[in-house]
Amino acid sequence: MRAVSECNFCVVGLGLLGGTYAMCLKRLGCRVTAVDIDEGAICWAKEHGVIDDGSADAPQAMLAGAHVVVLGLYPGAMMEWVRTHAKLLAPGTLVTDVCGVKAAVVGPVQALLPPGVEFIPCHPMAGREVGGVWNASPAMFEDANFLVTPTAANTNEAIEFAKQLGRALGFARISVLSCEEHDRMIGYVSQLTHAIAVSLMNANANEHLVDYTGDSFRDLTRIANINETLWSELFFANRAALIEEIGQFERSLNDVKRALETGDSETLKALMRQSAARRRLFDKKK
Amino acid sequence: MRAVSECNFCVVGLGLLGGTYAMCLKRLGCRVTAVDIDEGAICWAKEHGVIDDGSADAPQAMLAGAHVVVLGLYPGAMMEWVRTHAKLLAPGTLVTDVCGVKAAVVGPVQALLPPGVEFIPCHPMAGREVGGVWNASPAMFEDANFLVTPTAANTNEAIEFAKQLGRALGFARISVLSCEEHDRMIGYVSQLTHAIAVSLMNANANEHLVDYTGDSFRDLTRIANINETLWSELFFANRAALIEEIGQFERSLNDVKRALETGDSETLKALMRQSAARRRLFDKKK
Repeated sequence: MRAVSECNFCVVGLGLLGGTYAMCLKRLGCRVTAVDIDEGAICWAKEHGVIDDGSADAPQAMLAGAHVVVLGLYPGAMMEWVRTHAKLLAPGTLVTDVCGVKAAVVGPVQALLPPGVEFIPCHPMAGREVGGVWNASPAMFEDANFLVTPTAANTNEAIEFAKQLGRALGFARISVLSCEEHDRMIGYVSQLTHAIAVSLMNANANEHLVDYTGDSFRDLTRIANINETLWSELFFANRAALIEEIGQFERSLNDVKRALETGDSETLKALMRQSAARRRLFDKKK
Repeated sequence: MRAVSECNFCVVGLGLLGGTYAMCLKRLGCRVTAVDIDEGAICWAKEHGVIDDGSADAPQAMLAGAHVVVLGLYPGAMMEWVRTHAKLLAPGTLVTDVCGVKAAVVGPVQALLPPGVEFIPCHPMAGREVGGVWNASPAMFEDANFLVTPTAANTNEAIEFAKQLGRALGFARISVLSCEEHDRMIGYVSQLTHAIAVSLMNANANEHLVDYTGDSFRDLTRIANINETLWSELFFANRAALIEEIGQFERSLNDVKRALETGDSETLKALMRQSAARRRLFDKKK
């Protein structure tokens, strides 16, 4: 497999993440084409030098000559695109993605691809509260994690290439883990936190209360301003793991409630000490 | 009642909040004395010009001539101090506090004070993850809320003075509300968020997971590094309201879980849309 900087890329889905991939890869000297249903995104990206060429209706021409295809799509749209367009991919092409859930999509995508086309799943853990290629920004990747989640169907070459790609895109940390480990972890650190933020925001209808709000409430609800189309897809694609994580959190919150109800201040303090110790460890690891 | 800048203050409990009061009041030209059980805090504050005089064992001398006494103590310690030292307060003295809970402490404190000594309860909604007068900082008050929570026992003069004090300390917003309204609000925007952060941190023992953590998890658990002595006191002093708020949040989180379990993506999206709309409104109000 050639080095990242010597590859031609085609980005399918030129949104916030796909657009940032394109920017980073162009800076490295790669040839980058793009496919997107939105003519405006293609036009903007061409004019701003983010891509060399792009099209909303001629994917075949954009895919021609691409060594690597980046699927920058929502999970459902990615499966749909692969179902329809897999036949356009030449043998030897490497395909990767940006999906925030893995087990539900990786197997089906690998099964749909023609012989000689390898799919190496990746999850760039970065995002913003706004979307679109016009909000793309390489700085978004700087302090973030890049996860490679191979299956038994992947070659070592593809795994090594994916790690190289993460580094070339500027990510701070690159990790390799299984799709199942990935989904359990993401159920806890990302999806559960979003479920909590949404629930906290919905728990009280009194708009008046926000007049008195301090930093802690702002911090906990920042991500409550959520894109419901993307996140409901991600939640359902990882349903079992997320339901399990919510249950675990409910039991943990119930420990606090029971200590209050029974007047057990020693238990309450012990819970607070445990959480404080874990959180400090966590700051040290940053 | 004279203007804030023309008053002599005695700060009882020279910690993070009491220390910041002292710094701000000295800058305004007030005479400021302090009482604290920690000789080191008194010594440091004198040497750094934060107070004019202070003592660990001679409260009577420090209280002499003070027009206003600021109780910068934890709820339990405040009740104890008032029980023991109320007799030292001269008629005409105004007493105020910094407690994060109100209904449980305000009535008892007002009842313990001698005739002619008025207690006007206040809650400066500011804090840091570190304590002590050496971490005091007027900047902490700049974007924060100052709440005055009078009872029927308070005079209009004292309420007006408390509002003036909040402004003189540099708070961004001053509000007046009842102790009961205060405790309900604080149960939601502050105590519930701390209970959630602690529970989220305690929900999963896998330290390994934090290697993959993004900003959302960091934001939600920042306050999980909690001072268990102060916060267990605050939780218990507002027990009924906090148990009620936890219950309301549990029902809200259960709506998300049930939508996932029953495959009801329309309900899940509606919950996300509601939370996003509320959060946006909230940003606008800032």
